Amino acid sequence: MDFDHPDHVNALMARVSAFMDAHIFPNEHLYEEQVKEFGWTQAPPVIEELKEKARAERLWNMFLPDSEAGFGLSNLEYAPLCELMGRSPIGPEAFNCAAPDTGNMEVLERYGSQEHKDEWLKPLLAGEIRSAFAMTEPEVASSDATNIKTSIVQEGNGYTINGRKWYISGAGDPRCKILIVMGKTDPEADRHQQQSMILVPMDTPGVTVVRPMEVFGNDHAPHGHMEITFENVKVPASNLLLGEGRGFEIAQGRLGPGRIHHCMRLIGMSERCLEMMCRRVQERVAFGRPLATRDNIRADIADSRIEIDSARLLVLRAADMMDRVGNKEAKSEISAIKVVAPNLCQRVADRAIQAHGAMGISQDTILAHAWMHARTIRFADGPDEVHRGVISKIELAKHKDG
Amino acid sequence: MDFDHPDHVNALMARVSAFMDAHIFPNEHLYEEQVKEFGWTQAPPVIEELKEKARAERLWNMFLPDSEAGFGLSNLEYAPLCELMGRSPIGPEAFNCAAPDTGNMEVLERYGSQEHKDEWLKPLLAGEIRSAFAMTEPEVASSDATNIKTSIVQEGNGYTINGRKWYISGAGDPRCKILIVMGKTDPEADRHQQQSMILVPMDTPGVTVVRPMEVFGNDHAPHGHMEITFENVKVPASNLLLGEGRGFEIAQGRLGPGRIHHCMRLIGMSERCLEMMCRRVQERVAFGRPLATRDNIRADIADSRIEIDSARLLVLRAADMMDRVGNKEAKSEISAIKVVAPNLCQRVADRAIQAHGAMGISQDTILAHAWMHARTIRFADGPDEVHRGVISKIELAKHKDG
Amino acid sequence: MDFDHPDHVNALMARVSAFMDAHIFPNEHLYEEQVKEFGWTQAPPVIEELKEKARAERLWNMFLPDSEAGFGLSNLEYAPLCELMGRSPIGPEAFNCAAPDTGNMEVLERYGSQEHKDEWLKPLLAGEIRSAFAMTEPEVASSDATNIKTSIVQEGNGYTINGRKWYISGAGDPRCKILIVMGKTDPEADRHQQQSMILVPMDTPGVTVVRPMEVFGNDHAPHGHMEITFENVKVPASNLLLGEGRGFEIAQGRLGPGRIHHCMRLIGMSERCLEMMCRRVQERVAFGRPLATRDNIRADIADSRIEIDSARLLVLRAADMMDRVGNKEAKSEISAIKVVAPNLCQRVADRAIQAHGAMGISQDTILAHAWMHARTIRFADGPDEVHRGVISKIELAKHKDG
Amino acid sequence: MDFDHPDHVNALMARVSAFMDAHIFPNEHLYEEQVKEFGWTQAPPVIEELKEKARAERLWNMFLPDSEAGFGLSNLEYAPLCELMGRSPIGPEAFNCAAPDTGNMEVLERYGSQEHKDEWLKPLLAGEIRSAFAMTEPEVASSDATNIKTSIVQEGNGYTINGRKWYISGAGDPRCKILIVMGKTDPEADRHQQQSMILVPMDTPGVTVVRPMEVFGNDHAPHGHMEITFENVKVPASNLLLGEGRGFEIAQGRLGPGRIHHCMRLIGMSERCLEMMCRRVQERVAFGRPLATRDNIRADIADSRIEIDSARLLVLRAADMMDRVGNKEAKSEISAIKVVAPNLCQRVADRAIQAHGAMGISQDTILAHAWMHARTIRFADGPDEVHRGVISKIELAKHKDG
Repeated sequence: MDFDHPDHVNALMARVSAFMDAHIFPNEHLYEEQVKEFGWTQAPPVIEELKEKARAERLWNMFLPDSEAGFGLSNLEYAPLCELMGRSPIGPEAFNCAAPDTGNMEVLERYGSQEHKDEWLKPLLAGEIRSAFAMTEPEVASSDATNIKTSIVQEGNGYTINGRKWYISGAGDPRCKILIVMGKTDPEADRHQQQSMILVPMDTPGVTVVRPMEVFGNDHAPHGHMEITFENVKVPASNLLLGEGRGFEIAQGRLGPGRIHHCMRLIGMSERCLEMMCRRVQERVAFGRPLATRDNIRADIADSRIEIDSARLLVLRAADMMDRVGNKEAKSEISAIKVVAPNLCQRVADRAIQAHGAMGISQDTILAHAWMHARTIRFADGPDEVHRGVISKIELAKHKDG
Repeated sequence: MDFDHPDHVNALMARVSAFMDAHIFPNEHLYEEQVKEFGWTQAPPVIEELKEKARAERLWNMFLPDSEAGFGLSNLEYAPLCELMGRSPIGPEAFNCAAPDTGNMEVLERYGSQEHKDEWLKPLLAGEIRSAFAMTEPEVASSDATNIKTSIVQEGNGYTINGRKWYISGAGDPRCKILIVMGKTDPEADRHQQQSMILVPMDTPGVTVVRPMEVFGNDHAPHGHMEITFENVKVPASNLLLGEGRGFEIAQGRLGPGRIHHCMRLIGMSERCLEMMCRRVQERVAFGRPLATRDNIRADIADSRIEIDSARLLVLRAADMMDRVGNKEAKSEISAIKVVAPNLCQRVADRAIQAHGAMGISQDTILAHAWMHARTIRFADGPDEVHRGVISKIELAKHKDG
Repeated sequence: MDFDHPDHVNALMARVSAFMDAHIFPNEHLYEEQVKEFGWTQAPPVIEELKEKARAERLWNMFLPDSEAGFGLSNLEYAPLCELMGRSPIGPEAFNCAAPDTGNMEVLERYGSQEHKDEWLKPLLAGEIRSAFAMTEPEVASSDATNIKTSIVQEGNGYTINGRKWYISGAGDPRCKILIVMGKTDPEADRHQQQSMILVPMDTPGVTVVRPMEVFGNDHAPHGHMEITFENVKVPASNLLLGEGRGFEIAQGRLGPGRIHHCMRLIGMSERCLEMMCRRVQERVAFGRPLATRDNIRADIADSRIEIDSARLLVLRAADMMDRVGNKEAKSEISAIKVVAPNLCQRVADRAIQAHGAMGISQDTILAHAWMHARTIRFADGPDEVHRGVISKIELAKHKDG
Repeated sequence: MDFDHPDHVNALMARVSAFMDAHIFPNEHLYEEQVKEFGWTQAPPVIEELKEKARAERLWNMFLPDSEAGFGLSNLEYAPLCELMGRSPIGPEAFNCAAPDTGNMEVLERYGSQEHKDEWLKPLLAGEIRSAFAMTEPEVASSDATNIKTSIVQEGNGYTINGRKWYISGAGDPRCKILIVMGKTDPEADRHQQQSMILVPMDTPGVTVVRPMEVFGNDHAPHGHMEITFENVKVPASNLLLGEGRGFEIAQGRLGPGRIHHCMRLIGMSERCLEMMCRRVQERVAFGRPLATRDNIRADIADSRIEIDSARLLVLRAADMMDRVGNKEAKSEISAIKVVAPNLCQRVADRAIQAHGAMGISQDTILAHAWMHARTIRFADGPDEVHRGVISKIELAKHKDG
């Protein structure tokens, strides 16, 4: 048992951290200004500049384990780096380690054909295009993925897709070129064999972006969370990933890494919120003394420290299990962090907001972002309730023969 | 002891409720569309139409107790009406019962001169203009109002005002014509005699709206929460309310009603969130059965029911105390509801959001609004911490002689 | 709407309160000493002396509404008196208003024959004997009363009872003369018509007290919570209450008052804990200043004040509904307080314990008692989960036609 | 970074676990019966038999790191063993690893003279005698140890001790032969140099056990938590540990291991509660289905699983820090687990109790013990509030120069 990172990870952490300090944090406001300037028309130029810099420093694509295309890091080694990037809302993309692309790249790497890799994985790894994952539907409770009813019907040499999706994150970005769509190929099959995944280029006829869905009133342009209709969308049969009825299998493979990356980033964001709170309460004076002298503020700080530390340990342990026994065996551990990290970040951000007063909800800090983002992740990629169900099922099975 | 409303209140409740059903709820989306269309340039036309209708039905200015200008209702009688209006974000304004105008009208009615009333109260009561209350400052912890440092200096026949305020709600509205500004007339006076309040017309030279402050990324145009600078703003001496050094006294008088109105509305909003949750969970099916059959969902509903009911009783009791012993004597009770109601509404909205999934954070329901608004009120008009301090001080004093 | 008690209730409150101060609180330690001295052999003599005093002052049997045998108070009028008595663990019995007798007397008054009343209700009202209610069984989840499996079989002119009960509170007391036993008369009937209630004198052959069950290590002698076996216990047919298959009906009638009385007492106990905490923190100094100056302590006090006040209002409202629309119609409101009050008292006691340090868990204060008792009530008379189920069912039904 | 225990620890874990299964759990009820039989007069014979067995298997004194007298395990290696022993209230003593002796033995090993070791440490390590640690006083808030006012005055060749202590755990045991007493040698010295520690044999004239203090109504005989007076108690000067004014230094050294051992045991106890809950809910049926099918029960199980796992990781990390940088540098980490573990265990026990119904508070399971014990540890060895203060102070210092 050993709680230290190995030297090469420590070295990478130092480099990522230095990059964050030098390039990411100082450009957060500029990014926001450019978003206001360019809206949906183009990605803020500053992000492309940052990507160039990160790539030049070879801090790029650190996320992809077990692949020659990647950096050669395990999940456990990647975790502290991902956490550092997650300290800024614009960090992950700068290092080409942003959602939903990392998950999509894992799908293409694990389940894609060579053609898929050449056409889509390569430019994604190069940071030239972006991608989206089209699963959630407005008309059904998508927390139960068997509910998904978009149809994928084989016709001639290809598949025809019909359905309505929403909250397709990243699909608003003009750089987004490819969708991984989940839908039903066989509504008569066994419950977990009905779904398949298929590649749909954004520019395929019949793909219509209806509107940007808002997240607490924010449209997150140019990334966006789009409502998209698929009307008689036709793609070649080769676009199907892995085979008909294997959508669940891929979803499980994809969601493991996707979830743990979210958790790592949320821990980084929580650390930053706590740090901001610590600074703020030592500066602000009310009723004759700094807020930092108040026991309830101090209790909030202590609890945040404790909760962040324990969440981080849980995430590292889950990453280690994924590396050693595989995503499937680490199911309970992944569900555990998926419950813990978003709630943690929402709580820590909430405390920091309260300590900041009006500034905490304003555009002048990242606290409002942290709070809303964390709240959103509490049901994205599976709501807390579903993950608690997974954990309890495994736990109950351990003690069955009373 | 009697838990029923009197007949005339029940009759008014029925009328307000019918108005909400007929006119308010059906126009919420139109309002949002018009906000997107007109932005900061004008108030959505639909709200003026609604105001006309409400006025025609004599459901107008129901908030002002102890005044010939008002409707003749006590706080206790007004409470259930205010709750009903609060079920919609656009309800209160339609009945001319919206923050911050109600609080400002109370100030003008209680502490204004006849001239102030003629010039500002009259058009406010008529719904012709709007107003704002300029207290919070970016550079100090305004939760402790003695920190406020905007200067109000007597010069010649008038006062000169210098300072920076932010989160001045409503000051973005083109209909907003008058500000009530809090600032220091005498930095050397006793801690609670340093501040005064003064009327500053929006068009006074030196008043500059710097930018809209955002609330979780939303600018709330055209209402807005503006950052405003006051640079050598000169107003006549007669604009001073009540007298130099009496700002705290007015603030206390103003904040009592302002706070309880917020709480009443938050309870209405909580009721609506709960109602939405109840409908949703009976429609949505996951893992083979409606969400409504799940015990954790049912526990959320039960707890929401319990918490709303107890918060409402607390609010009614506080209103009754304000009516009978005055705002000052009801201090602990007002602080209690100011802690309870925003936390309640945030919690109930959070549960409803979770039950709605992605729709819960979208622009398609009022849940996201409810959640963010409730969070904001947790520190607006005094953060929870300050109110808990008020309550505990009074409680401790009861049991002093150990 | 009116939050004041009527004059005659205020007068009674003053008298009960004076009695508590003069006689009850000063004798708590003596009671404990006598318990240690006499154990299971007899009730502490002091309690009989207190009962005599209370009876002499005509503060006696105040609980029984709608009955000539009672005091003529409604539930709403009784509530504040019951709260005052509940401030001491030995208060209720002194006024002949203690559980489980009050509930049992209500059963006898509402559902008993004249013979039952003469034989058992009369001496209970006179405080000459005590009683117990035998419902919970060790082998089944008694939270679902349909599980209860003690058999009550008609044989000849009477009934024969076989089964095992536990946690039969009060059955350890040598003064306990009568049991109301719930069991199955017809296992084939409809789920809610299988159970009946029958009177079983403690000295009936076949009734065996197996052992005292402990509550967190305490046996609560001489009251006790006994495990009792019924082996071929024979009683006359006339001992059956109301009729075969009507056990549920009686249970509902009994549990309403039983539950609300518990809640009233728990609020009184909470008030006392809060008062003790307020005194303590103003006396104790740590790290150079009284605990009362610490914000987290103050927040605990404020939250306790708020929570007690709102729980009391809920209880009063529930009492009012019971008086006006009946126990059955007030089902949701009774379940609400049954969830709220025990959790409240546990929480307030927990805070007071923390503020007291070691003394808080000792025999030197009533805090340890309050905390354990509140915890116990969280599942006695229906666990929180069942009550939340009742409330949510009613709430969901209101909003069915989505 | 590595989350596995080394082989020799895994082997020890298997042996301790087997011992628990074979000898400890089956004897818990017998132990309780013997306690009832022998009371304060002697320790239950079964515990001495268990100690003999454990010693024979060389599962003995595993706790003492960095000492030839010990087992040679680091804190990190000892942690999982201590957790296993902690699954039973009688586990730790059987392995001679019980509080307060382990802490006291550490004091004697680190700060005692050779004479102290020969006279007291040797028989303690042999399990022949027991010991107690006399710090808490009834008259002051002992959470701030500078408050302690027992006087230790040098007179002639020795020291004279006067004062009153309470909640001196273990001092009721007839096998308890030695007290480590904390008191003031110099009330005029600097705040942290006033206190000293001194060895006082139980049979020294002037040492009087006044009464057993109760823990939620339990006296925990024969161990006990005694109130003790020291009246002109005279001991030789050589009984002073380390030197005058060094009491704080020793307390810090003692409390680190003492606290982490408590935490390890609490995690073991939490695991057992969770396991019991899992079994119970799969057996019990209410309203037609096993409790295990209910979502709120499943959520409780999932949360317990998550919380136990994260607490264990925190404890292991703290143990590792103690091993590598010393108890003083690991201060924040030790305080963190001291907050986390007792609250965890109280919460997990509370959930298990609720799932067990009446049985959960009875003498038939260890749940009631777990719940009360965990609650007690929430202020023993420093209340949560003090530990949160320690953590926040360190955290704030990291971000000082805003």
